Amino acid sequence: MNTDSIEQKWSDGEREIVRATYRVMVEHGYSNLSISKIADELGKTKASVYYHYDSKEELLVSFLDFVVDWFKNDIAEEISESPETALSNLVESLIPLELDDETFHGQVVLLELRSQTRRSEEFRERFTEINDLLVGIVRDIIERGVETGAFRDVEAPRVAEHIVATANGARIDRVTTDRPAAPAAVRVSLSSYIDSELRQHD
Amino acid sequence: MNTDSIEQKWSDGEREIVRATYRVMVEHGYSNLSISKIADELGKTKASVYYHYDSKEELLVSFLDFVVDWFKNDIAEEISESPETALSNLVESLIPLELDDETFHGQVVLLELRSQTRRSEEFRERFTEINDLLVGIVRDIIERGVETGAFRDVEAPRVAEHIVATANGARIDRVTTDRPAAPAAVRVSLSSYIDSELRQHD
Repeated sequence: MNTDSIEQKWSDGEREIVRATYRVMVEHGYSNLSISKIADELGKTKASVYYHYDSKEELLVSFLDFVVDWFKNDIAEEISESPETALSNLVESLIPLELDDETFHGQVVLLELRSQTRRSEEFRERFTEINDLLVGIVRDIIERGVETGAFRDVEAPRVAEHIVATANGARIDRVTTDRPAAPAAVRVSLSSYIDSELRQHD
Repeated sequence: MNTDSIEQKWSDGEREIVRATYRVMVEHGYSNLSISKIADELGKTKASVYYHYDSKEELLVSFLDFVVDWFKNDIAEEISESPETALSNLVESLIPLELDDETFHGQVVLLELRSQTRRSEEFRERFTEINDLLVGIVRDIIERGVETGAFRDVEAPRVAEHIVATANGARIDRVTTDRPAAPAAVRVSLSSYIDSELRQHD
Protein backbone atom coordinates (compact mmCIF):
# COMPACT_ATOMS: atom_id res chain seq x y z
CA MET A 1 0.00 0.00 0.00
CA ASN A 2 1.14 3.45 -0.85
CA THR A 3 0.49 6.58 1.18
CA ASP A 4 0.26 8.54 -2.08
CA SER A 5 -2.68 6.46 -3.31
CA ILE A 6 -5.33 8.96 -2.15
CA GLU A 7 -3.63 11.73 -4.15
CA GLN A 8 -3.36 9.44 -7.17
CA LYS A 9 -6.92 8.06 -7.16
CA TRP A 10 -8.82 11.19 -6.20
CA SER A 11 -8.83 14.46 -8.10
CA ASP A 12 -8.41 17.68 -6.10
CA GLY A 13 -12.08 18.52 -6.71
CA GLU A 14 -13.32 15.14 -5.50
CA ARG A 15 -11.14 15.23 -2.42
CA GLU A 16 -12.35 18.70 -1.51
CA ILE A 17 -15.96 17.59 -1.86
CA VAL A 18 -15.70 14.39 0.19
CA ARG A 19 -13.81 16.25 2.91
CA ALA A 20 -16.49 18.95 2.97
CA THR A 21 -19.13 16.19 3.11
CA TYR A 22 -17.38 14.74 6.15
CA ARG A 23 -17.17 18.13 7.89
CA VAL A 24 -20.86 18.85 7.24
CA MET A 25 -21.90 15.43 8.61
CA VAL A 26 -19.63 15.84 11.64
CA GLU A 27 -21.30 19.16 12.37
CA HIS A 28 -24.92 18.48 11.42
CA GLY A 29 -25.28 14.69 11.33
CA TYR A 30 -26.02 12.49 8.33
CA SER A 31 -29.77 13.13 8.31
CA ASN A 32 -29.29 16.88 7.90
CA LEU A 33 -26.80 16.54 5.06
CA SER A 34 -27.68 18.34 1.83
CA ILE A 35 -25.87 19.31 -1.35
CA SER A 36 -26.57 22.97 -0.44
CA LYS A 37 -24.78 22.59 2.90
CA ILE A 38 -21.81 20.95 1.17
CA ALA A 39 -21.67 23.74 -1.42
CA ASP A 40 -21.81 26.36 1.39
CA GLU A 41 -19.01 24.55 3.25
CA LEU A 42 -16.92 24.67 0.06
CA GLY A 43 -17.86 28.28 -0.67
CA LYS A 44 -19.02 27.11 -4.12
CA THR A 45 -22.28 26.64 -6.02
CA LYS A 46 -24.46 23.53 -5.91
CA ALA A 47 -23.73 23.14 -9.64
CA SER A 48 -20.04 22.68 -8.90
CA VAL A 49 -20.89 19.74 -6.64
CA TYR A 50 -23.30 18.27 -9.22
CA TYR A 51 -20.50 18.57 -11.79
CA HIS A 52 -18.77 15.70 -9.93
CA TYR A 53 -21.74 13.78 -8.49
CA ASP A 54 -25.23 13.21 -9.89
CA SER A 55 -26.94 12.73 -6.53
CA LYS A 56 -26.42 12.85 -2.78
CA GLU A 57 -26.49 9.04 -2.86
CA GLU A 58 -23.65 8.86 -5.38
CA LEU A 59 -21.66 11.38 -3.35
CA LEU A 60 -22.10 9.33 -0.16
CA VAL A 61 -20.95 6.13 -1.89
CA SER A 62 -17.91 8.07 -3.06
CA PHE A 63 -17.40 9.34 0.49
CA LEU A 64 -17.37 5.72 1.72
CA ASP A 65 -14.85 4.80 -0.99
CA PHE A 66 -12.71 7.61 0.35
CA VAL A 67 -13.06 6.22 3.89
CA VAL A 68 -11.85 2.83 2.61
CA ASP A 69 -8.76 4.43 1.01
CA TRP A 70 -8.17 6.55 4.08
CA PHE A 71 -8.27 3.45 6.34
CA LYS A 72 -5.84 1.69 4.02
CA ASN A 73 -3.35 4.54 4.22
CA ASP A 74 -3.80 5.17 7.91
CA ILE A 75 -3.37 1.57 8.92
CA ALA A 76 -0.62 0.84 6.39
CA GLU A 77 1.66 3.06 8.45
CA GLU A 78 1.36 0.80 11.46
CA ILE A 79 2.02 -2.59 9.94
CA SER A 80 5.71 -2.14 9.20
CA GLU A 81 6.48 -2.77 12.87
CA SER A 82 7.22 -6.19 14.45
CA PRO A 83 4.07 -8.35 14.64
CA GLU A 84 3.73 -7.85 18.43
CA THR A 85 4.09 -4.07 18.19
CA ALA A 86 1.91 -3.83 15.08
CA LEU A 87 -0.92 -5.76 16.73
CA SER A 88 -0.70 -3.83 19.96
CA ASN A 89 -0.65 -0.47 18.10
CA LEU A 90 -3.60 -1.55 15.99
CA VAL A 91 -5.68 -2.49 19.06
CA GLU A 92 -4.84 0.90 20.57
CA SER A 93 -5.91 2.75 17.46
CA LEU A 94 -9.08 0.66 17.00
CA ILE A 95 -10.14 1.25 20.63
CA PRO A 96 -9.09 4.82 21.40
CA LEU A 97 -9.55 5.81 25.03
CA GLU A 98 -9.66 9.53 24.35
CA LEU A 99 -11.53 10.90 21.33
CA ASP A 100 -11.41 14.52 20.26
CA ASP A 101 -14.79 15.96 19.27
CA GLU A 102 -14.22 15.63 15.53
CA THR A 103 -13.19 11.97 15.73
CA PHE A 104 -16.06 11.23 18.11
CA HIS A 105 -18.63 12.71 15.74
CA GLY A 106 -16.87 11.12 12.77
CA GLN A 107 -17.42 7.71 14.41
CA VAL A 108 -21.10 8.54 14.93
CA VAL A 109 -21.44 9.60 11.27
CA LEU A 110 -19.96 6.26 10.15
CA LEU A 111 -22.44 4.49 12.42
CA GLU A 112 -25.33 6.49 10.94
CA LEU A 113 -24.22 5.50 7.44
CA ARG A 114 -23.71 1.89 8.55
CA SER A 115 -27.26 1.79 9.88
CA GLN A 116 -28.44 2.74 6.35
CA THR A 117 -26.97 -0.39 4.71
CA ARG A 118 -30.46 -1.84 4.57
CA ARG A 119 -31.63 0.68 2.02
CA SER A 120 -28.43 0.80 0.00
CA GLU A 121 -26.62 -2.22 -1.42
CA GLU A 122 -23.72 0.09 -2.28
CA PHE A 123 -23.35 1.27 1.33
CA ARG A 124 -23.43 -2.38 2.38
CA GLU A 125 -20.63 -3.23 -0.06
CA ARG A 126 -18.44 -0.47 1.37
CA PHE A 127 -18.94 -1.56 4.98
CA THR A 128 -18.24 -5.14 3.92
CA GLU A 129 -15.02 -3.85 2.38
CA ILE A 130 -14.08 -1.91 5.53
CA ASN A 131 -14.60 -4.92 7.81
CA ASP A 132 -12.82 -7.27 5.36
CA LEU A 133 -9.96 -4.81 5.22
CA LEU A 134 -9.58 -4.61 9.00
CA VAL A 135 -9.85 -8.37 9.47
CA GLY A 136 -7.34 -8.91 6.62
CA ILE A 137 -4.81 -6.55 8.21
CA VAL A 138 -5.09 -8.24 11.62
CA ARG A 139 -4.90 -11.69 9.99
CA ASP A 140 -1.76 -10.72 8.04
CA ILE A 141 -0.05 -9.45 11.18
CA ILE A 142 -0.91 -12.67 13.02
CA GLU A 143 0.28 -14.85 10.12
CA ARG A 144 3.51 -12.89 9.97
CA GLY A 145 3.97 -13.45 13.72
CA VAL A 146 3.34 -17.19 13.32
CA GLU A 147 5.94 -17.34 10.54
CA THR A 148 8.58 -15.50 12.55
CA GLY A 149 7.86 -17.60 15.63
CA ALA A 150 6.64 -14.60 17.68
CA PHE A 151 3.13 -16.07 17.86
CA ARG A 152 1.79 -19.58 18.36
CA ASP A 153 0.36 -21.46 15.41
CA VAL A 154 -3.23 -20.24 15.86
CA GLU A 155 -6.09 -20.07 13.34
CA ALA A 156 -5.32 -16.52 12.22
CA PRO A 157 -8.62 -15.79 10.39
CA ARG A 158 -10.72 -16.73 13.41
CA VAL A 159 -8.62 -14.79 15.91
CA ALA A 160 -8.64 -11.81 13.55
CA GLU A 161 -12.47 -11.86 13.36
CA HIS A 162 -12.60 -11.96 17.16
CA ILE A 163 -10.23 -9.00 17.59
CA VAL A 164 -12.05 -6.84 15.02
CA ALA A 165 -15.52 -7.67 16.41
CA THR A 166 -14.36 -6.80 19.93
CA ALA A 167 -12.79 -3.52 18.80
CA ASN A 168 -15.87 -2.57 16.76
CA GLY A 169 -18.20 -3.36 19.64
CA ALA A 170 -16.10 -1.31 22.06
CA ARG A 171 -15.85 1.65 19.66
CA ILE A 172 -19.59 1.74 19.02
CA ASP A 173 -20.28 1.49 22.76
CA ARG A 174 -17.88 4.42 23.29
CA VAL A 175 -19.78 6.80 21.00
CA THR A 176 -23.36 5.76 21.80
CA THR A 177 -23.43 5.30 25.60
CA ASP A 178 -22.20 6.97 28.79
CA ARG A 179 -19.92 4.17 29.91
CA PRO A 180 -16.54 5.91 29.96
CA ALA A 181 -14.67 3.06 31.69
CA ALA A 182 -15.79 0.36 29.24
CA PRO A 183 -13.26 0.86 26.40
CA ALA A 184 -10.29 0.70 28.77
CA ALA A 185 -11.63 -2.54 30.28
CA VAL A 186 -12.10 -4.08 26.82
CA ARG A 187 -8.66 -2.97 25.71
CA VAL A 188 -6.97 -4.51 28.75
CA SER A 189 -8.94 -7.72 28.33
CA LEU A 190 -8.22 -7.87 24.59
CA SER A 191 -4.49 -7.34 25.19
CA SER A 192 -4.53 -10.11 27.75
CA TYR A 193 -6.41 -12.33 25.27
CA ILE A 194 -3.79 -11.60 22.60
CA ASP A 195 -1.06 -12.30 25.10
CA SER A 196 -2.42 -15.64 26.30
CA GLU A 197 -3.78 -16.81 22.93
CA LEU A 198 -0.96 -15.70 20.64
CA ARG A 199 2.32 -15.10 22.39
CA GLN A 200 4.87 -17.85 22.74
CA HIS A 201 5.65 -18.15 26.42
CA ASP A 202 8.57 -20.55 26.31
CA MET B 1 -36.51 -10.45 37.63
CA ASN B 2 -40.04 -11.37 36.88
CA THR B 3 -41.38 -12.48 33.52
CA ASP B 4 -44.67 -10.75 34.36
CA SER B 5 -43.00 -7.36 34.71
CA ILE B 6 -43.87 -6.23 31.17
CA GLU B 7 -47.57 -6.88 31.82
CA GLN B 8 -47.34 -5.08 35.16
CA LYS B 9 -45.43 -1.99 34.02
CA TRP B 10 -47.09 -1.43 30.65
CA SER B 11 -50.76 -0.81 30.04
CA ASP B 12 -52.44 -2.74 27.19
CA GLY B 13 -52.65 0.47 25.15
CA GLU B 14 -48.96 1.30 25.60
CA ARG B 15 -47.87 -2.23 24.76
CA GLU B 16 -49.99 -2.24 21.59
CA ILE B 17 -48.46 1.07 20.51
CA VAL B 18 -44.82 0.18 21.13
CA ARG B 19 -45.31 -3.16 19.37
CA ALA B 20 -46.88 -1.40 16.39
CA THR B 21 -43.98 1.08 16.43
CA TYR B 22 -41.56 -1.82 16.23
CA ARG B 23 -43.44 -3.44 13.33
CA VAL B 24 -43.58 -0.16 11.40
CA MET B 25 -39.83 0.41 11.88
CA VAL B 26 -39.04 -3.20 10.91
CA GLU B 27 -41.01 -2.69 7.70
CA HIS B 28 -40.16 0.91 6.78
CA GLY B 29 -37.03 1.79 8.76
CA TYR B 30 -36.67 4.36 11.50
CA SER B 31 -36.37 7.36 9.17
CA ASN B 32 -39.77 6.64 7.61
CA LEU B 33 -41.55 6.23 10.92
CA SER B 34 -44.54 8.50 11.53
CA ILE B 35 -47.43 8.65 13.97
CA SER B 36 -49.80 8.19 10.98
CA LYS B 37 -48.11 4.92 10.01
CA ILE B 38 -48.32 3.68 13.61
CA ALA B 39 -52.01 4.61 13.77
CA ASP B 40 -52.61 2.79 10.45
CA GLU B 41 -50.78 -0.28 11.75
CA LEU B 42 -53.02 -0.24 14.84
CA GLY B 43 -56.17 0.42 12.79
CA LYS B 44 -56.78 3.47 15.03
CA THR B 45 -56.70 7.26 14.76
CA LYS B 46 -53.62 9.43 15.29
CA ALA B 47 -55.45 10.96 18.26
CA SER B 48 -55.51 7.59 20.01
CA VAL B 49 -51.69 7.45 19.74
CA TYR B 50 -51.33 11.07 20.93
CA TYR B 51 -53.55 10.19 23.88
CA HIS B 52 -50.61 8.12 25.21
CA TYR B 53 -47.61 10.01 23.80
CA ASP B 54 -47.13 13.75 23.16
CA SER B 55 -44.57 13.34 20.38
CA LYS B 56 -42.77 10.80 18.19
CA GLU B 57 -39.69 11.46 20.32
CA GLU B 58 -41.51 10.56 23.54
CA LEU B 59 -42.92 7.44 21.89
CA LEU B 60 -39.46 6.31 20.77
CA VAL B 61 -38.01 6.80 24.25
CA SER B 62 -40.89 4.69 25.53
CA PHE B 63 -40.15 2.11 22.83
CA LEU B 64 -36.54 1.91 24.07
CA ASP B 65 -37.77 1.50 27.66
CA PHE B 66 -39.84 -1.39 26.38
CA VAL B 67 -36.75 -2.89 24.70
CA VAL B 68 -34.91 -2.67 28.04
CA ASP B 69 -37.75 -4.54 29.82
CA TRP B 70 -37.99 -7.05 27.01
CA PHE B 71 -34.22 -7.76 27.23
CA LYS B 72 -34.54 -8.21 30.98
CA ASN B 73 -37.32 -10.77 30.58
CA ASP B 74 -35.77 -12.54 27.65
CA ILE B 75 -32.38 -12.92 29.22
CA ALA B 76 -33.71 -13.65 32.70
CA GLU B 77 -34.95 -16.98 31.39
CA GLU B 78 -31.45 -18.11 30.55
CA ILE B 79 -29.62 -17.31 33.75
CA SER B 80 -31.20 -19.97 35.92
CA GLU B 81 -28.92 -22.57 34.33
CA SER B 82 -25.46 -23.58 35.61
CA PRO B 83 -22.87 -20.81 35.02
CA GLU B 84 -21.21 -22.71 32.14
CA THR B 85 -24.49 -23.41 30.37
CA ALA B 86 -25.86 -19.93 31.06
CA LEU B 87 -22.78 -18.26 29.58
CA SER B 88 -22.72 -20.50 26.56
CA ASN B 89 -26.46 -19.99 25.90
CA LEU B 90 -26.04 -16.25 26.29
CA VAL B 91 -23.19 -16.13 23.75
CA GLU B 92 -25.35 -18.13 21.33
CA SER B 93 -28.30 -15.78 21.73
CA LEU B 94 -26.11 -12.64 21.50
CA ILE B 95 -24.44 -13.88 18.30
CA PRO B 96 -27.19 -15.66 16.37
CA LEU B 97 -25.96 -17.46 13.24
CA GLU B 98 -29.34 -17.51 11.56
CA LEU B 99 -31.66 -14.51 11.71
CA ASP B 100 -35.21 -14.51 10.47
CA ASP B 101 -36.18 -11.39 8.52
CA GLU B 102 -38.00 -9.74 11.39
CA THR B 103 -35.13 -10.19 13.84
CA PHE B 104 -32.63 -9.06 11.21
CA HIS B 105 -34.54 -5.85 10.54
CA GLY B 106 -35.20 -5.40 14.26
CA GLN B 107 -31.43 -5.39 14.82
CA VAL B 108 -31.02 -2.79 12.07
CA VAL B 109 -33.74 -0.62 13.65
CA LEU B 110 -31.94 -0.73 16.99
CA LEU B 111 -28.73 0.27 15.22
CA GLU B 112 -30.53 3.18 13.52
CA LEU B 113 -31.82 4.36 16.90
CA ARG B 114 -28.39 3.83 18.46
CA SER B 115 -26.83 6.03 15.77
CA GLN B 116 -29.22 8.82 16.90
CA THR B 117 -27.83 8.98 20.44
CA ARG B 118 -25.97 12.13 19.51
CA ARG B 119 -29.13 14.16 19.13
CA SER B 120 -31.02 12.63 22.05
CA GLU B 121 -29.66 12.36 25.59
CA GLU B 122 -32.66 10.15 26.39
CA PHE B 123 -31.78 7.66 23.63
CA ARG B 124 -28.21 7.65 24.93
CA GLU B 125 -29.43 6.87 28.46
CA ARG B 126 -31.41 3.86 27.17
CA PHE B 127 -28.50 2.41 25.20
CA THR B 128 -26.28 2.95 28.25
CA GLU B 129 -28.86 1.00 30.22
CA ILE B 130 -28.98 -1.80 27.62
CA ASN B 131 -25.19 -2.23 27.57
CA ASP B 132 -24.95 -1.98 31.38
CA LEU B 133 -27.67 -4.59 31.63
CA LEU B 134 -25.92 -7.04 29.29
CA VAL B 135 -22.53 -6.55 30.95
CA GLY B 136 -24.17 -6.94 34.39
CA ILE B 137 -25.80 -10.22 33.42
CA VAL B 138 -22.54 -11.66 32.02
CA ARG B 139 -20.62 -10.42 35.08
CA ASP B 140 -23.15 -12.03 37.46
CA ILE B 141 -22.89 -15.37 35.65
CA ILE B 142 -19.08 -15.23 35.82
CA GLU B 143 -19.10 -14.27 39.50
CA ARG B 144 -21.50 -17.12 40.24
CA GLY B 145 -19.15 -19.48 38.39
CA VAL B 146 -16.16 -18.21 40.38
CA GLU B 147 -18.07 -18.77 43.64
CA THR B 148 -19.10 -22.31 42.74
CA GLY B 149 -15.58 -23.15 41.55
CA ALA B 150 -16.69 -23.72 37.92
CA PHE B 151 -14.63 -20.73 36.77
CA ARG B 152 -11.22 -19.43 37.68
CA ASP B 153 -10.93 -16.34 39.86
CA VAL B 154 -10.88 -13.81 36.98
CA GLU B 155 -11.74 -10.11 36.97
CA ALA B 156 -15.40 -10.62 36.11
CA PRO B 157 -16.25 -7.00 35.13
CA ARG B 158 -13.41 -6.84 32.62
CA VAL B 159 -14.12 -10.23 31.05
CA ALA B 160 -17.82 -9.33 30.89
CA GLU B 161 -17.04 -6.07 29.01
CA HIS B 162 -14.91 -8.07 26.56
CA ILE B 163 -17.63 -10.66 25.89
CA VAL B 164 -20.37 -8.06 25.38
CA ALA B 165 -18.18 -5.87 23.11
CA THR B 166 -17.29 -8.90 20.98
CA ALA B 167 -20.90 -10.03 20.71
CA ASN B 168 -22.10 -6.49 19.86
CA GLY B 169 -19.40 -6.08 17.21
CA ALA B 170 -20.28 -9.44 15.64
CA ARG B 171 -24.03 -8.72 15.65
CA ILE B 172 -23.62 -5.31 14.04
CA ASP B 173 -21.26 -6.79 11.42
CA ARG B 174 -23.91 -9.45 10.73
CA VAL B 175 -26.65 -6.98 9.86
CA THR B 176 -24.60 -4.34 8.02
CA THR B 177 -22.20 -6.33 5.81
CA ASP B 178 -22.13 -9.34 3.49
CA ARG B 179 -19.75 -11.44 5.56
CA PRO B 180 -21.87 -14.48 6.35
CA ALA B 181 -19.03 -16.57 7.81
CA ALA B 182 -17.89 -13.91 10.30
CA PRO B 183 -20.38 -14.48 13.17
CA ALA B 184 -19.62 -18.21 13.33
CA ALA B 185 -15.87 -17.50 13.44
CA VAL B 186 -16.36 -14.97 16.26
CA ARG B 187 -18.61 -17.33 18.18
CA VAL B 188 -16.10 -20.20 18.00
CA SER B 189 -13.28 -17.89 19.01
CA LEU B 190 -15.30 -16.38 21.86
CA SER B 191 -16.21 -19.84 23.16
CA SER B 192 -12.59 -20.82 23.05
CA TYR B 193 -11.68 -17.58 24.88
CA ILE B 194 -14.26 -18.37 27.57
CA ASP B 195 -12.95 -21.89 27.82
CA SER B 196 -9.28 -20.95 28.17
CA GLU B 197 -9.82 -17.80 30.25
CA LEU B 198 -12.56 -18.98 32.59
CA ARG B 199 -12.88 -22.72 32.91
CA GLN B 200 -10.98 -24.62 35.55
CA HIS B 201 -8.95 -27.29 33.82
CA ASP B 202 -7.71 -29.28 36.80
